[in-house]
Parts: sequence; structure tokens; C-alpha cells
Amino acid sequence: MTTLAFEDFTPGRVFELGTTVVDRDEMVAFARRFDPQPFHVDEEAGKASIFGALAASGWFTAALWMRLYVDEVLNKATSLGSPGGEELVWPAPVFAGDELRASMEVLEARSSRSRPGLGLVKLRARLHRGDVLVFHSTFTGMFGAGEQA
Amino acid sequence: MTTLAFEDFTPGRVFELGTTVVDRDEMVAFARRFDPQPFHVDEEAGKASIFGALAASGWFTAALWMRLYVDEVLNKATSLGSPGGEELVWPAPVFAGDELRASMEVLEARSSRSRPGLGLVKLRARLHRGDVLVFHSTFTGMFGAGEQA
Repeated sequence: MTTLAFEDFTPGRVFELGTTVVDRDEMVAFARRFDPQPFHVDEEAGKASIFGALAASGWFTAALWMRLYVDEVLNKATSLGSPGGEELVWPAPVFAGDELRASMEVLEARSSRSRPGLGLVKLRARLHRGDVLVFHSTFTGMFGAGEQA
Repeated sequence: MTTLAFEDFTPGRVFELGTTVVDRDEMVAFARRFDPQPFHVDEEAGKASIFGALAASGWFTAALWMRLYVDEVLNKATSLGSPGGEELVWPAPVFAGDELRASMEVLEARSSRSRPGLGLVKLRARLHRGDVLVFHSTFTGMFGAGEQA
């Protein structure tokens, strides 16, 4: 298997990460444990809410994106974790049964000044239901430089 | 029970949200499902990593904060959800058994121009282990105005 190293994350490159379907039971179980607001755990409260139906916790939506990113990129890469990000947006609600398509775009890449062999990659996460963007985030990933670098 | 409305979120007000202890089994189960990077799911890989031990997924850490925020603030408030945030930072790793203390600080509050009765509150989330800040985030919450407003 080819390992993705820092040098492979060139600005403008887009990684398509595949799709996932929102499982109702898992969506509600997640909300019960981590985000038990009425519109995330109760059908009727969801209908009466600003979302118009039982809606996923935004943290669940983010976590669904993360799993696809780990499977398609991070666990095939010289990933060294993430210090965080600077944007986290849920422009539209996510509902049970939604099929979500994930992608990741490289925005910037630079070598660390203080730590040779380490590269910092700024990237944009996106999750779409059809043409509707339901989640996006901009954050930084740390990756080891390739052995040939 | 007094309901917290938009007017109660005055800039500078800090809400102490209590503490939670990181359960090892739950931490690993979360990572297996949503963030199965080796240093989040395997003890040895964690020791060999930049973190020095098996470390929590940052999304799990964020979700732990969220639960305390829901229990102590949102489910006692006129919460109408969140459109997102502009900062998400994990300055230090979180480990199994850590006791984490959560807080929320109101940074800004303004009434919506387009939607009367709706207020937008910019707030900072923080999670500490002792004096070490392990998670912080800045995002916006939407709250209904109080009936007396």
C-alpha cells in the first residue's frame, strides 16, 4: 500500500471519501449520551423545532465525516494528529436515513519550522446530502514527511 | 425551574458546568466507531505516538464537553440550536481516567436583525484537566428572547 506522506497533500487536491447513511438508532443513541437536547432525541420535539424533524447532533455529523476521513486518508497516511481547527459549520440539519457524501480538500501545506520532518496541512472537510452542504470545517493536520523527501 | 433566555447570556458571564471522568472503555469504543487511528484505539500505538499514551479522539473530548453544557445550560434554556463555530482546539491530549472540568463563557450577545425574538450568543467552551487546558472552542448559540423582554 502506498502511504500518503506530507508531500502528497498538495494545495487544491481533493480527496473523495465516500458516503455513509445516517442510522436512526445510532443517531439517537449518540444524542442521548452526548447531546440530549429535545430536538435531537425526541421525534415530536424535532418536528416542533427549527429543524422540522428529529435532527442529528452536529457532533454526530462531524464524527461521521471523521470516520470516512480516517478510513480513506488518515489510516493510509503518516498522520500525527491534529492541533485543531478554525471553522466548524452546520449550514443545514441532518436527518435519519440521509446519505452523506464526504470530501476533503487541501487548502495549504507547509513544513514545520520548529520540527523537521513534520508538515502542517490545512484542509477543508465537507459533507453533502445531494447538493446540500450539511457540514464543513477547516482544520490542520500534522503529517510526517516522506522517506524520500 | 428558571429558564435561561437570551437576556441571561451577558458578555463576561461564566457558567461552571461541572466535571466528568474519561471512561477508558467508552473512550476506545468511540474511537473504534468514529476515529480509529492507531493512537486512539491501541495502547502500544498510543505509547509510541506523539501523545505518549492511548489518547482520546478530539471529537470524543468535544462531545464530553457538550454533554455537560446540555445538562447545565441548554436543557434549562430557550436553546434553538447552533449554526457552528470558528475555533476548535485541542492543546493537550486527553487520557483515560482524566477528570475534566468544563466551563462556558459568554463572549458576545446580539439580537438577530432578521428574526425578532432570536438572539445570537457567541461563547467559549473550555475543558481543563487540573490547570491544563485540553479543549477550547468558540461558537454561536441561538436562544429565544425571554417572555418579559
